[in-house]
Amino acid sequence: MKLYDFELSGNCHKIRMLLSMLGQEYDRVDIDLRHKDQFDSDFVALNPLHKVPVLDDGDVLLRDSAAIMVYLARTYGKPELYPDAPAEMADVQQWLSFSVNEVFNGLAMVRANIIFKRGLDQAALTKAASDALDMLEHRLMDHDWLSLDRFTLADLGCYPYTALSHEGGMDLAKWPAVQAWCRRVESLPGYVAMPGLPGAT
Amino acid sequence: MKLYDFELSGNCHKIRMLLSMLGQEYDRVDIDLRHKDQFDSDFVALNPLHKVPVLDDGDVLLRDSAAIMVYLARTYGKPELYPDAPAEMADVQQWLSFSVNEVFNGLAMVRANIIFKRGLDQAALTKAASDALDMLEHRLMDHDWLSLDRFTLADLGCYPYTALSHEGGMDLAKWPAVQAWCRRVESLPGYVAMPGLPGAT
Repeated sequence: MKLYDFELSGNCHKIRMLLSMLGQEYDRVDIDLRHKDQFDSDFVALNPLHKVPVLDDGDVLLRDSAAIMVYLARTYGKPELYPDAPAEMADVQQWLSFSVNEVFNGLAMVRANIIFKRGLDQAALTKAASDALDMLEHRLMDHDWLSLDRFTLADLGCYPYTALSHEGGMDLAKWPAVQAWCRRVESLPGYVAMPGLPGAT
Repeated sequence: MKLYDFELSGNCHKIRMLLSMLGQEYDRVDIDLRHKDQFDSDFVALNPLHKVPVLDDGDVLLRDSAAIMVYLARTYGKPELYPDAPAEMADVQQWLSFSVNEVFNGLAMVRANIIFKRGLDQAALTKAASDALDMLEHRLMDHDWLSLDRFTLADLGCYPYTALSHEGGMDLAKWPAVQAWCRRVESLPGYVAMPGLPGAT
């Protein structure tokens, strides 16, 4: 199994963490977004959206962190992270959509604009990030996990860019339930760090 | 079953079309975004993101069109639209994520900015919409459907805002494979129209 991966990508971190939780070995192919590796023709042939992560698992080729998580959890022994029962699966799916739109376009971009110098409107991104944190806080103020009252792909999908958002100027102390949830994720067996997250070397 | 619905919403259209394909009756609750109904406290209690659609099916309450589609297809007799096999499910999921991010933030917003007068940067939205159409064209130039070589939630999720994008100034004649795919969707049993789509009254 081969993961096209960038160390500083939260979307890639979701996959590295899930692979760790599943106990799966894999080979890393480094796609350094700072060097525009994602626009190399070999990589664009794998993902015309020129985004990481991409997973190559024999005859399965997938882009998109949500899709890769669904595939890995259900192939390698943790289907309960994205369970069969339609109402439960859909409840998790709501948060996968939230991770793909609101978390990515708010919490990921508020950080990317700083650390990758994207030249976007930081005030607008801060508002979008703040709105996403409000939604997470609304759920987590009286629940330990985003969906189904247990750890699922919902949490894995929303965690990295939330926990990394301090690099974009967000102060999670203003969202205490979100902050406590981050600590819960970080205490799970199989948690892996990355630069900007607890435990990074 | 109750659908909180806005006639002009492409995200709602996905659900109306799927319910038609499944032969399911439902009650409509009109949430008129032009009148800011989505900010009424009763609706915000159902969906703190104040977006349509929302589905209430007894003890199941769901926001988000992708999640609602997953629930309906797998509950009411068309699980093949989002199939069990992990690699197939994940392949469809890639396009659900694409519908939630690139299609929504490009093709939906380029139209919303015109018809709902959002005051956003139309040139930037046109570029995002064009990029999304390029990705669809790339797939559809040598495939009839977005995923698995048959109609799935991938197509349903990406169809409405693509076919409605002429209301945002996009000329689909420049993306002929996308245009042909729209006609294929519109010829399916259970297809329903809405203002701006073929067959609207």
